[in-house]
Amino acid sequence: MNILFIGDVVGSPGRDMVSEYLPKLRAKYRPTLTIVNGENAANGKGITEKIYRSFLESGAQVVTLGNHTWDNKEIFEFIDSAKKLIRPANFPDETPGTGIVYINCNGQEVAVINLQGRTFLPPIDCPFKKVDELIEEAKKRTSFIFVDFHAEATSEKQAMGWYLDGRVSAVVGTHTHVQTADNRILPKGTAYITDVGMTGPYDGILGVEREAVLKRFKTTLPVRFEVTGGRTQLNGVIVELDKTSGEAKKIERILINEDHPFFD
Amino acid sequence: MNILFIGDVVGSPGRDMVSEYLPKLRAKYRPTLTIVNGENAANGKGITEKIYRSFLESGAQVVTLGNHTWDNKEIFEFIDSAKKLIRPANFPDETPGTGIVYINCNGQEVAVINLQGRTFLPPIDCPFKKVDELIEEAKKRTSFIFVDFHAEATSEKQAMGWYLDGRVSAVVGTHTHVQTADNRILPKGTAYITDVGMTGPYDGILGVEREAVLKRFKTTLPVRFEVTGGRTQLNGVIVELDKTSGEAKKIERILINEDHPFFD
Amino acid sequence: MNILFIGDVVGSPGRDMVSEYLPKLRAKYRPTLTIVNGENAANGKGITEKIYRSFLESGAQVVTLGNHTWDNKEIFEFIDSAKKLIRPANFPDETPGTGIVYINCNGQEVAVINLQGRTFLPPIDCPFKKVDELIEEAKKRTSFIFVDFHAEATSEKQAMGWYLDGRVSAVVGTHTHVQTADNRILPKGTAYITDVGMTGPYDGILGVEREAVLKRFKTTLPVRFEVTGGRTQLNGVIVELDKTSGEAKKIERILINEDHPFFD
Amino acid sequence: MNILFIGDVVGSPGRDMVSEYLPKLRAKYRPTLTIVNGENAANGKGITEKIYRSFLESGAQVVTLGNHTWDNKEIFEFIDSAKKLIRPANFPDETPGTGIVYINCNGQEVAVINLQGRTFLPPIDCPFKKVDELIEEAKKRTSFIFVDFHAEATSEKQAMGWYLDGRVSAVVGTHTHVQTADNRILPKGTAYITDVGMTGPYDGILGVEREAVLKRFKTTLPVRFEVTGGRTQLNGVIVELDKTSGEAKKIERILINEDHPFFD
Ligand SMILES: [Fe+2]
Ligand SMILES: [Fe+2]
Ligand SMILES: [Fe+2]
Ligand SMILES: [Fe+2]
Ligand SMILES: [Fe+2]
Ligand SMILES: [Fe+2]
Ligand SMILES: [Fe+2]
Ligand SMILES: [Fe+2]
Repeated sequence: MNILFIGDVVGSPGRDMVSEYLPKLRAKYRPTLTIVNGENAANGKGITEKIYRSFLESGAQVVTLGNHTWDNKEIFEFIDSAKKLIRPANFPDETPGTGIVYINCNGQEVAVINLQGRTFLPPIDCPFKKVDELIEEAKKRTSFIFVDFHAEATSEKQAMGWYLDGRVSAVVGTHTHVQTADNRILPKGTAYITDVGMTGPYDGILGVEREAVLKRFKTTLPVRFEVTGGRTQLNGVIVELDKTSGEAKKIERILINEDHPFFD
Repeated sequence: MNILFIGDVVGSPGRDMVSEYLPKLRAKYRPTLTIVNGENAANGKGITEKIYRSFLESGAQVVTLGNHTWDNKEIFEFIDSAKKLIRPANFPDETPGTGIVYINCNGQEVAVINLQGRTFLPPIDCPFKKVDELIEEAKKRTSFIFVDFHAEATSEKQAMGWYLDGRVSAVVGTHTHVQTADNRILPKGTAYITDVGMTGPYDGILGVEREAVLKRFKTTLPVRFEVTGGRTQLNGVIVELDKTSGEAKKIERILINEDHPFFD
Repeated sequence: MNILFIGDVVGSPGRDMVSEYLPKLRAKYRPTLTIVNGENAANGKGITEKIYRSFLESGAQVVTLGNHTWDNKEIFEFIDSAKKLIRPANFPDETPGTGIVYINCNGQEVAVINLQGRTFLPPIDCPFKKVDELIEEAKKRTSFIFVDFHAEATSEKQAMGWYLDGRVSAVVGTHTHVQTADNRILPKGTAYITDVGMTGPYDGILGVEREAVLKRFKTTLPVRFEVTGGRTQLNGVIVELDKTSGEAKKIERILINEDHPFFD
Repeated sequence: MNILFIGDVVGSPGRDMVSEYLPKLRAKYRPTLTIVNGENAANGKGITEKIYRSFLESGAQVVTLGNHTWDNKEIFEFIDSAKKLIRPANFPDETPGTGIVYINCNGQEVAVINLQGRTFLPPIDCPFKKVDELIEEAKKRTSFIFVDFHAEATSEKQAMGWYLDGRVSAVVGTHTHVQTADNRILPKGTAYITDVGMTGPYDGILGVEREAVLKRFKTTLPVRFEVTGGRTQLNGVIVELDKTSGEAKKIERILINEDHPFFD
């Protein structure tokens, strides 16, 4: 069983890349499950219902989020009815939405979990404790568990990968918007990558206009962060699982940009 | 002209990888300049004079550092006499050592600069302002300038890459200990990668024993971070520069571990 | 009923102040309960069993802690047997010790709770959620509840004060080592102060040698933080509670140093 | 010579307190110089030209700022022409405005300096280094130097106080919005207080509506921080300097609220 995961989609350049390449990627890899991280899909800040639906129409079955979950206020109106949209499960209990969803993939149920780290990010509930609870719950239904761990620090992400090795099918990191080259199968059978990277502008700074970010770093003056134009990229991973055990067999990076064109 | 850069060497497992593979890498790529980041070389914490000398003996011409510069107290005794050892140039004026060194590579002078970021790291002088000063100085001697930007945040690293595009030969990131897959030549001719990755244990968390790191994340109790044993890896990049202009032509990732064996 | 609270005791200068003035303060205010924050009592870093016992002998009934709880490794050996020593209750479940203790004060039971903030401090469990649980538990036994909220940010401390107004007898802040002048009775009857301050050196920086701290700020070089000598101070508060309802009637600051001598 | 300093004025409740009590305070203490920190004067976020002028009309001669300097965009239009308005001097060189101003007080020139800390605040230039430069410059004109150090950490503020002891007349802290009780004359003659506190709502959390702040702490959901209504307070200090040497003789706290009414 193949699972395709697309990293943080940033604004309309990112959404255009999904529309254009998701069908091609699905034709090439024939994933039974496609997941998109959409926390920056609405102009870099959160997601709208329309965008969420467009991801499903493009062929995704699950949309995950992260620290930008609440940036677009529309989220509060549709998160409870969006059954395939999850936000980090370790957000405090009072927050709307949920952090786990079960998808039926040709008869095989797959649990998808979204978590958020705490290093260099706001204080929320412990992701390690929360994932223990969720895995215990999920294991009653399936041994196919896929985790999107949205976190900043490489230490926290590697820690989560090793913590879950042998307990879930895959742990993929998101949030830094830069794809890492450390995709691997950990010794007990879990696929791991520190960060999948982003989908959107190829020539911005994490997708944002360079001048604004540079002004910010040099002066600390307030700036508006706008999604930049120009060339685009798509970052993702394809994870291959054993169809009976759910164990990971392979995790491959996907990188599409002018320097790395797509091949069928 | 080829420049070989080896990412953060962690403890004796990292030093052993350097001893074993640096000669092979030099034979394969024939670099005119080899640089090693040694901030974690002494048991994960700083560097000693003996280790510094061993890097030079293994074939490196420059050793760079980072936020762990002062972890091993021996540094204060030898940093001023270690002519090929640089620490981040934007450390406050009162700090020992220097942040730029000029190397004669078969008649072509190359300036190597070490800088440190400020996002999620201690407040020091502005790396953007400092690099402007250093480039102005270096340009009087050479247009071959290589920058090791030791920083945590991907935004700050990409910002530095774009800031220096066309002004230096290469900007390579260090510190996160995870190699990124975004190596590229920026439009104005500067080679860039967000992080070169680390050299040392392959099965630790950033090179450290997993149990200690996990205990720390789960409990916040104090733990001793020790370099872990077992399988090892080497992470680096090889940058090819135009021999007359210093402009970058190619930047290639180097990854050596059990899953990615070395080929001559 | 009077409750006397002594702010963070720092090293031997702080312990000497407790030995000298606690008897005098008890004679003056006749508290039925005396609480000492001892997180810095052992040379600025944690506490030992001997020091803990000496506080009890000096007349304290409860010792509270904070982010320095684990600094002195001896704590792991005696925390479970030290029945009057509490550490922040919202430390993760796996940590030794407890965060609430009940004291019989002439027939009236008083619950003392220790909590820690998360702003600018390591990520732990939510103090607001945890205190809800503890208050629910404590209310079954007593309406006399005293909270030491060990936190950095004034916003988080004021938030806790208002959150608990009318639900507990007092919320006193610790950790910043500087006494605040905002002691007051909140509208629903809870005594509040943002920080009680520290007990120890009067001429250090938070009790630490000035040269080391200044060197650190100016250079970010590593330094040893040692408790400084010279003149000393004691910082505390005395809280008066209605003897039947537990409601706070008065909260008064105590400040003893060369500029503010003690009067009987 | 008396200098009156009013702590962070928050929104219209704070401005109303200034209008009402500044004349009374001036009548009572007869200050030759009055300084107001106005970083939160425009609805909690920055300052407008109209508000700046109203402070001068109320009797202030200097207005200082802090980390909220740029919150109200109008600042960029009038900061260069506002001769008595200063922002932290250690903001990067590219930022508009200045951080030092000289005031003629009945023939005696007084230098007023605004600085900002870096602990738990954005990375800017070193305040210790910058203040050295400014003092060297100011000493050529006057030995009457008054410093508003806008900073979060008590350690950084105490460090600045001791660093400048004997070199300036006064170092007063701002930013935490809570007045501290540690006002004192340091051994070499500098008046010091860690924080002057705020002027505005008495029943908010740092001046902000309590419900919003509590929701933020409990859920990390986005909230709008609005200045709250109800009872109000004024926090300040009055510093008495020797009229020939500029050395501080006395620093007294001013606290006006329903629990501490103003007396002529
Ligand atoms: Fe993102
Ligand atoms: Fe994110
Ligand atoms: Fe490192
Ligand atoms: Fe580092
Ligand atoms: Fe303390
Ligand atoms: Fe503390
Ligand atoms: Fe303020
Ligand atoms: Fe402020």
